[in-house]
Amino acid sequence: MPPSERKKPAAENDAAVPKAVVNRLSLYLRELQHLVAAGSATTSSGQLGQKLGFTDAQVRKDLAYFGQFGYPGVGYRCDELIEAIRGILGTNRHWPMAIVGIGNLGRALLGYKGFSHQGFRIVAGFDADASKIGKSIEGVEIFDIAELTNVVQQRQIKLGVIAVPAAAAQQVADQLVAAKVLGIVNFAPVTITLPEHVSHVGVDLAIEMEQIAFAVVNRLSGG
Amino acid sequence: MPPSERKKPAAENDAAVPKAVVNRLSLYLRELQHLVAAGSATTSSGQLGQKLGFTDAQVRKDLAYFGQFGYPGVGYRCDELIEAIRGILGTNRHWPMAIVGIGNLGRALLGYKGFSHQGFRIVAGFDADASKIGKSIEGVEIFDIAELTNVVQQRQIKLGVIAVPAAAAQQVADQLVAAKVLGIVNFAPVTITLPEHVSHVGVDLAIEMEQIAFAVVNRLSGG
Repeated sequence: MPPSERKKPAAENDAAVPKAVVNRLSLYLRELQHLVAAGSATTSSGQLGQKLGFTDAQVRKDLAYFGQFGYPGVGYRCDELIEAIRGILGTNRHWPMAIVGIGNLGRALLGYKGFSHQGFRIVAGFDADASKIGKSIEGVEIFDIAELTNVVQQRQIKLGVIAVPAAAAQQVADQLVAAKVLGIVNFAPVTITLPEHVSHVGVDLAIEMEQIAFAVVNRLSGG
Repeated sequence: MPPSERKKPAAENDAAVPKAVVNRLSLYLRELQHLVAAGSATTSSGQLGQKLGFTDAQVRKDLAYFGQFGYPGVGYRCDELIEAIRGILGTNRHWPMAIVGIGNLGRALLGYKGFSHQGFRIVAGFDADASKIGKSIEGVEIFDIAELTNVVQQRQIKLGVIAVPAAAAQQVADQLVAAKVLGIVNFAPVTITLPEHVSHVGVDLAIEMEQIAFAVVNRLSGG
């Protein structure tokens, strides 16, 4: 089916694409990128699911939310499916982002290679500590948090990442909202409250530990 | 229904509890902990799901994998459901863990308050850098990576967290396997290969960025 005949992304018709499906899209994208790096031009729902521990039916059902991507007798063309998923996720466009809080976690995020591999570009860091302001860390300029609104506008920053201690997270979130970012990722281990029009994802690293505890208790491998 | 009549955890009968369900258990646990902190003794599948963006049917279906936890006319007793989920996840027991790689990410993980809130205790750090070995960082002693096997045995470390650069991740994973940890959480942005008997979870922080991009593109709030 040529692209023009594909269904619109489901989210345009129906906001209720389960979050778990969107999460799996990221996993499929990563697996496809590995396949291409290993020299594969095509794949199948079975192969794609296998390494991730999903059934082929699950893979097909997830992708069917967004259109029809396979070819009879061929399977999926890796490059084409990568571009389609990047289009669905919105990572085929430019997302200037900022890290707020340049402590250990903020520095780790500034240097995290996984972001740039997926097309995310950190264009500014913010902190209140005068010893950090004006420096370049991992190639990123660090600004005074008091300059947040100005810098977000000048550098057209769309996404803000909160990497401050829990006690400061809500205040930083409010500042990011006032500066008109479109989305916020919160790494502080606390729930923040945001207006309806700002998207947000809360990252709770303890969840990963709970998942490994469950896997060990139930003697599961993989991941 | 008294605890003795509850079904065994599904994973004892059937290893195929979907990972997404286990992930949501962590989210329910967090929400229940917030409810208790706010003074609530009981809750409902509707209330529990609402803040997380899940339907009440989803909540009931997820919990039904592991038994029956509600009471007619009452709903769920928060403390009881917290203990039940901690039992299912295995976080009602002691999990001594180690962080390997004390760079920015390793330091951030050593100081991450979210782990100890959920009962995970970091009992050792490892690095190859002589300037870090022997120091105490965030109250955790840092050992020479060459001492990994000895320290893992002495301190009965069950879980290892990989926080080294991607190029070193597989070697560290092999060392953790040789030291006989039961589970590995890998923060390096690379896929590692492990023997079947070692559980592992790969953490890809770019997935969180992709999720927020999708939410912004589709104008979704919450999270």
